[in-house]
Amino acid sequence: MLYLIGLGLGDAKDITVKGLDVVRGCSRVYLEAYTSVLTVGKEALEEFYGRSLILADREEVEQEADTILKGADVSDVAFLVVGDPFGATTHSDLILRATKLGIPYRVIHNASIMNAVGCCGLQLYKFGETVSIVFWTDTWRPESFFDKVKRNRHSGVHTLCLLGKSGSARSSYRGRKIYEPPRYMSVNQAAQQLLEIIQNHRERGEEPEVTEETLCVGLARVGAEDQQIAAGTLQQMRTVDLGGPLHSLIITGGSLHPLEMEMLSLFSIPESSSDSQSVNGR
Amino acid sequence: MLYLIGLGLGDAKDITVKGLDVVRGCSRVYLEAYTSVLTVGKEALEEFYGRSLILADREEVEQEADTILKGADVSDVAFLVVGDPFGATTHSDLILRATKLGIPYRVIHNASIMNAVGCCGLQLYKFGETVSIVFWTDTWRPESFFDKVKRNRHSGVHTLCLLGKSGSARSSYRGRKIYEPPRYMSVNQAAQQLLEIIQNHRERGEEPEVTEETLCVGLARVGAEDQQIAAGTLQQMRTVDLGGPLHSLIITGGSLHPLEMEMLSLFSIPESSSDSQSVNGR
Repeated sequence: MLYLIGLGLGDAKDITVKGLDVVRGCSRVYLEAYTSVLTVGKEALEEFYGRSLILADREEVEQEADTILKGADVSDVAFLVVGDPFGATTHSDLILRATKLGIPYRVIHNASIMNAVGCCGLQLYKFGETVSIVFWTDTWRPESFFDKVKRNRHSGVHTLCLLGKSGSARSSYRGRKIYEPPRYMSVNQAAQQLLEIIQNHRERGEEPEVTEETLCVGLARVGAEDQQIAAGTLQQMRTVDLGGPLHSLIITGGSLHPLEMEMLSLFSIPESSSDSQSVNGR
Repeated sequence: MLYLIGLGLGDAKDITVKGLDVVRGCSRVYLEAYTSVLTVGKEALEEFYGRSLILADREEVEQEADTILKGADVSDVAFLVVGDPFGATTHSDLILRATKLGIPYRVIHNASIMNAVGCCGLQLYKFGETVSIVFWTDTWRPESFFDKVKRNRHSGVHTLCLLGKSGSARSSYRGRKIYEPPRYMSVNQAAQQLLEIIQNHRERGEEPEVTEETLCVGLARVGAEDQQIAAGTLQQMRTVDLGGPLHSLIITGGSLHPLEMEMLSLFSIPESSSDSQSVNGR
């Protein structure tokens, strides 16, 4: 059996009891190393689970699926995923490969950033399509995702923006694999790019549905002990200090339910603060 | 401290290790009794957790929040929620009440139907606004949610339909509280109502974006051992047999990614079958 097991978002103890039982009973356990991060590393997980884990990066999962699945028809193999196995990244490719090899699979779900962002008080059923904001380079500055944000806002629904990661790709130098340290986009950087896109729209004579004054929510390390949430304008998101990764940004849909407003007020950035505010949240 | 703890979707062992630790250490533990169901009852949870639980229905949470929160400033009180505390139903009211009383809170997230539906292979970031389909009565047959389905479909994004529950409200008879047994909407019933709405649109001379032939996915008991998934047309959803509650229905957004198509093919209803098909899923 192939088990796909979600680890949740915080630390080693965010695995479910069912998931932990399976991890301890499997012949091999892989840890997905490319999508997301917990607040703890592989070693902390190994210590808590009481067994060793095999790191699998994206390339390995895609190219060496058969190695991962080897023997899973006669013994149990687990594939651990930060968040939920069907959260921000799906693992359909591994499941399809297993199915073709006649290997049964089971999924043990957990919290994903896709549902845990509800902790800010915005209602999950009122979210529209999710977008990803990638790091711009000097020559590549994609804006197309902004159409989805505008469409969501026009429909009155919130947009969850998943923020990019770069540098995780490994390169080769004289046959040796080189891992670049990953770089995670902050809410500040995402807001900066959004503000530039809005400016570009204006220069083309368009007045976008999302402006500097649009109410947004910045979230950092959702599900972890030191989680932070800040509600304020997009302009405020450019400077709010939410600490280390992972960050996510929500662009609200406009008309909020009174309960949503009241919840966001728990996290609102003080009016008086200017640059580099520090915000406490849960 | 007030802890809001998600129980996930399957059985007692779907709680996280962190959640279980907290449950065992709290002075009082409430179990939310109104939104959703696990495959096991209160007694099974109590046995696994090794402690007693206090059932709290919607009315009690709304009217007796102060009783639930009593002493939470000096000891730990837990409020258990099937799925995630910020999933299909938010528990903002309890958090706001706690905050007003100066009681700190923490959320321990878990899988929600809002993210676990990704197990069918449709990509979560491509879902639009979620809708709820309620039981029609002879005199109350709301169709307004269908506008959201059409808008999602027009934008090419999927719609998760949460299916109604009725009869859970309690009534009073000579001062005694009477609980009606809850009734959960099946995928068949939801499809039947949708087909009638489509017919009504046609009678008004409109050709809706969603028709009998629109590709849908029916899901039952997501996250449980006997989970079932069926992919087929809306017409096929009218008769597919997915077993007991809880059911959810997804109306796809039209153009699917090849990986989405390939995943759905694992769950497709056989072409040859007509009424009352039985479908196996994971």
